[in-house]
Amino acid sequence: MKVGFIGLGAMGSAMASNLLKAGHSVTVWNRSPEATAPLASLGAKVASTPQRAAQGEALFSMLSNDQAVREVVLDSGLLEEMDKGTVHVNHATVSVALARELASAHAQRGLDYVAAPVFGRPDVAAAGRLNIVVAGKPAVLERVRPLLEAMGSAIWPMGEEAERANVVKIAGNFMLGAAIESMAEASALTRAHGVSAGDFLHVMTSTLFAAPPYQGYAKLIAEQRFKPAGFALPLGYKDINLALSAADATRVPLPFASVLRDSLLETLALGDEDVDWSALAMVAARRAGLKD
Amino acid sequence: MKVGFIGLGAMGSAMASNLLKAGHSVTVWNRSPEATAPLASLGAKVASTPQRAAQGEALFSMLSNDQAVREVVLDSGLLEEMDKGTVHVNHATVSVALARELASAHAQRGLDYVAAPVFGRPDVAAAGRLNIVVAGKPAVLERVRPLLEAMGSAIWPMGEEAERANVVKIAGNFMLGAAIESMAEASALTRAHGVSAGDFLHVMTSTLFAAPPYQGYAKLIAEQRFKPAGFALPLGYKDINLALSAADATRVPLPFASVLRDSLLETLALGDEDVDWSALAMVAARRAGLKD
Amino acid sequence: MKVGFIGLGAMGSAMASNLLKAGHSVTVWNRSPEATAPLASLGAKVASTPQRAAQGEALFSMLSNDQAVREVVLDSGLLEEMDKGTVHVNHATVSVALARELASAHAQRGLDYVAAPVFGRPDVAAAGRLNIVVAGKPAVLERVRPLLEAMGSAIWPMGEEAERANVVKIAGNFMLGAAIESMAEASALTRAHGVSAGDFLHVMTSTLFAAPPYQGYAKLIAEQRFKPAGFALPLGYKDINLALSAADATRVPLPFASVLRDSLLETLALGDEDVDWSALAMVAARRAGLKD
Amino acid sequence: MKVGFIGLGAMGSAMASNLLKAGHSVTVWNRSPEATAPLASLGAKVASTPQRAAQGEALFSMLSNDQAVREVVLDSGLLEEMDKGTVHVNHATVSVALARELASAHAQRGLDYVAAPVFGRPDVAAAGRLNIVVAGKPAVLERVRPLLEAMGSAIWPMGEEAERANVVKIAGNFMLGAAIESMAEASALTRAHGVSAGDFLHVMTSTLFAAPPYQGYAKLIAEQRFKPAGFALPLGYKDINLALSAADATRVPLPFASVLRDSLLETLALGDEDVDWSALAMVAARRAGLKD
Repeated sequence: MKVGFIGLGAMGSAMASNLLKAGHSVTVWNRSPEATAPLASLGAKVASTPQRAAQGEALFSMLSNDQAVREVVLDSGLLEEMDKGTVHVNHATVSVALARELASAHAQRGLDYVAAPVFGRPDVAAAGRLNIVVAGKPAVLERVRPLLEAMGSAIWPMGEEAERANVVKIAGNFMLGAAIESMAEASALTRAHGVSAGDFLHVMTSTLFAAPPYQGYAKLIAEQRFKPAGFALPLGYKDINLALSAADATRVPLPFASVLRDSLLETLALGDEDVDWSALAMVAARRAGLKD
Repeated sequence: MKVGFIGLGAMGSAMASNLLKAGHSVTVWNRSPEATAPLASLGAKVASTPQRAAQGEALFSMLSNDQAVREVVLDSGLLEEMDKGTVHVNHATVSVALARELASAHAQRGLDYVAAPVFGRPDVAAAGRLNIVVAGKPAVLERVRPLLEAMGSAIWPMGEEAERANVVKIAGNFMLGAAIESMAEASALTRAHGVSAGDFLHVMTSTLFAAPPYQGYAKLIAEQRFKPAGFALPLGYKDINLALSAADATRVPLPFASVLRDSLLETLALGDEDVDWSALAMVAARRAGLKD
Repeated sequence: MKVGFIGLGAMGSAMASNLLKAGHSVTVWNRSPEATAPLASLGAKVASTPQRAAQGEALFSMLSNDQAVREVVLDSGLLEEMDKGTVHVNHATVSVALARELASAHAQRGLDYVAAPVFGRPDVAAAGRLNIVVAGKPAVLERVRPLLEAMGSAIWPMGEEAERANVVKIAGNFMLGAAIESMAEASALTRAHGVSAGDFLHVMTSTLFAAPPYQGYAKLIAEQRFKPAGFALPLGYKDINLALSAADATRVPLPFASVLRDSLLETLALGDEDVDWSALAMVAARRAGLKD
Repeated sequence: MKVGFIGLGAMGSAMASNLLKAGHSVTVWNRSPEATAPLASLGAKVASTPQRAAQGEALFSMLSNDQAVREVVLDSGLLEEMDKGTVHVNHATVSVALARELASAHAQRGLDYVAAPVFGRPDVAAAGRLNIVVAGKPAVLERVRPLLEAMGSAIWPMGEEAERANVVKIAGNFMLGAAIESMAEASALTRAHGVSAGDFLHVMTSTLFAAPPYQGYAKLIAEQRFKPAGFALPLGYKDINLALSAADATRVPLPFASVLRDSLLETLALGDEDVDWSALAMVAARRAGLKD
């Protein structure tokens, strides 16, 4: 099929390349054009504006946050120039508020819209093994399903309203943050009793918590290796604030998210933004007066 | 080998029966004697006092909490009558403070002591697949290792000081509680946006959190099936207080544990103690004004 | 002196009337013109647009929140039409971010600006006994001091940067919220032990906490009289969010503010927005399973 | 009247001296006998055991904590030797659990008991201006009222059950801790925006919070003068734990107390126990990355 793809960070590039490998014709665009070269070498056409990429069966976008989506999708005039036959599949992790605004903006212009946030790091994206949470009209979802299947190992439909997919992504990221904080606090406790974070977390992630995210973050905490960041602290802070905003709009108290917010803020106040969000463990240890 | 086993609740009975199945000679005792019958039918000898069970290579004990351990092990005169060649292997989840007191009481009497708390529910114990966290002198551990291997699939040594094994158990249970609370809050958030707890938690526990404890508790939360309790709320509350006590003694702030304490207390204040501790989800939903 | 006053809610009307009583010539404007009549009867001139009120020595504004200030002051063209000799004195409780934006917008246009949030309810304003926290250039402050003294019993200068006055107001309101929550929790605790909120809070506010805000809110809590609202719950929630936003911008963890946010959200989730923010006590009691 | 007084720390000495000044005949006892000399010089008789002080109309005790009360009152045989006509007036801040145990121990022996915790520092005690919260039988209270009035400016009866007076004291101390934490967080927030703790807290404690405890602690926070301790951090930590224990027994979630517990624990983890509990402000500032 003929599709467009805008937003070629580590995630978007990996995803677009899987579309190419699956034999689709992909036109790509990125704000900084350097990122288009590797995809061009795989056969992608390069567009000079997002509008020119918005053609064919579907336009995929993988932009980094609310602001980027607002600028590229809503404020640029992109929707005005899109063909009514092109489905916009938005993979970005955006706020519930923007999810609603996007759904409404597409509907007003008679455009089909699918919210499709993903779980998975760039290596998972490269392997075509993302978990893609989707929301949109069932018939529209069916049209883009083969394309999504080129990028992900599982597609999780959550209903029609776009925000449903986005809130699942937001709530999932909150659960990840909570898992990290629980390891941070628990290992501060064992360290204070003479058991290293490595010994403790090895037991836990070999037994009850033998799941990849626990195992990955446990390794970083045990080794106190917070750089380079796999998932940078400011992004984690942004995600927890997305959860708190969604909670605010629907009046859902989230005491764990409030603790996470304060702990991430304290970690940020240490002055180093380039750390992984598992640096929460540094703060938990510091509060207990533990030396590195 | 010839061993004793005291404390025949669901866990202890399953563990003792695995010792019998492995060909060991087991003398059992339990406060309420009815629990001894099934083991007697498997070949166990039944002792009329804990002292009489304390003979042979090792005495295993699986008592329910600090108070039971204090009464049966420390206040009963049991240690005074134990043979110096018998190793006491204590499987109970006890406080760090009691762990120290027990280690000291055994040392004063020249008795060998192994702290050996376990991870796993009764079905796991019955299958002989417990994870057993141990602390004690290496030579002593080696002597009881074959016996432990009859009950568990993995033995996790944490060093010599007894409290090290106990703090790992306590910190692990805290992580379980945190995992439940994070699912409780996250699913309140998705429900407020139209995504059922079942749909949301199915995605999460099929992908990032594909670990048995998440899957088990997610099912209870999704079905709002909090009775009969797999792990009763007051036990969860006790365990979080063990974490807070250990944290108090070593001055480790644990903000997640504080939230858990308050949330469990709020769940208890609803008046029904017979619920599973995943009933934390009821409270998270109630706070958000969500109807069942 | 000749001055303007825009924003004639309960606070603004009381403040403007004190300017009139002090012999100043006041031109007033309000979005809904009904509010101007009582002031007109005291001798005020009524302007048909905010621009027409922006004349003379000073323009006072007492608008209800960020949005109202943005619309009336920034988006309306008001600043473009203001005379360079007129000082704008802004009494609104606004975010630190908007405080900065306002200071900058005035500076760019060569206009003098004083941030002047106030502590005090409408009855205090009517008595001319407000506490006015101010920030701005000393010489400018001196010019408007006689006018401020017609409205307040004390003027508290905090330096030049506008945001300094606003953060003091925000932090002060957070302290008020914390005082209420502490009474809410403490009286839930005494009630659970047989001491009524009234008996307990009477002791506390007659002794250690014999300060008017404690006494006023204690009375509401003791009588469970949360309507009509003296200070409506959504306004309290707004103010705590102003504290959290200011904390976010400067990376200051505020765990008490996080608890307040969640407790206010839980109170809002009960579904009744018309209650006073001391209804926090309802939620504290409900969590403990206390009946009304 | 003829009375006894045991426990002659700074508080007890000041209280006993007011009984002497009011013309009563006082027999005193203290664990370390040096403390008796100043009172002897005022006319007190010195007893060599607590039992010998327990005679006449009333025995007053002002011991430092649960452990001291348990040792001196319950475990020493004191109650067995007390005359049935002597009322025991216990001024100590004890746990609700011990309050119940004490009431029951006295009742079993037919002894009259009054729980009478006090609000006020040593200087207030010396001035005879304590606030004394009392619980006990009305007729018994009337008998000791003239004696209490020699020590306090107000007597606050809370009913018959001893624990009622103690829970009021505990809840009141929790409110003090919350007031300090709110100042600690609020002033960290203003400092991050350029307003010193001194400038901010001066406004607040001159206006809304013009109550002595706020003013006293604000001064310490503004000057970062945490030594010598007026009220030492470990005592504050003990008091918050008394609140949490009382809350545990009656199932009252206290999220502010949980935050206080963690913040006090973090302050203790800094390693210096000799600081005033207003050193909470150090931790709030440190979390925000603020330099001293």
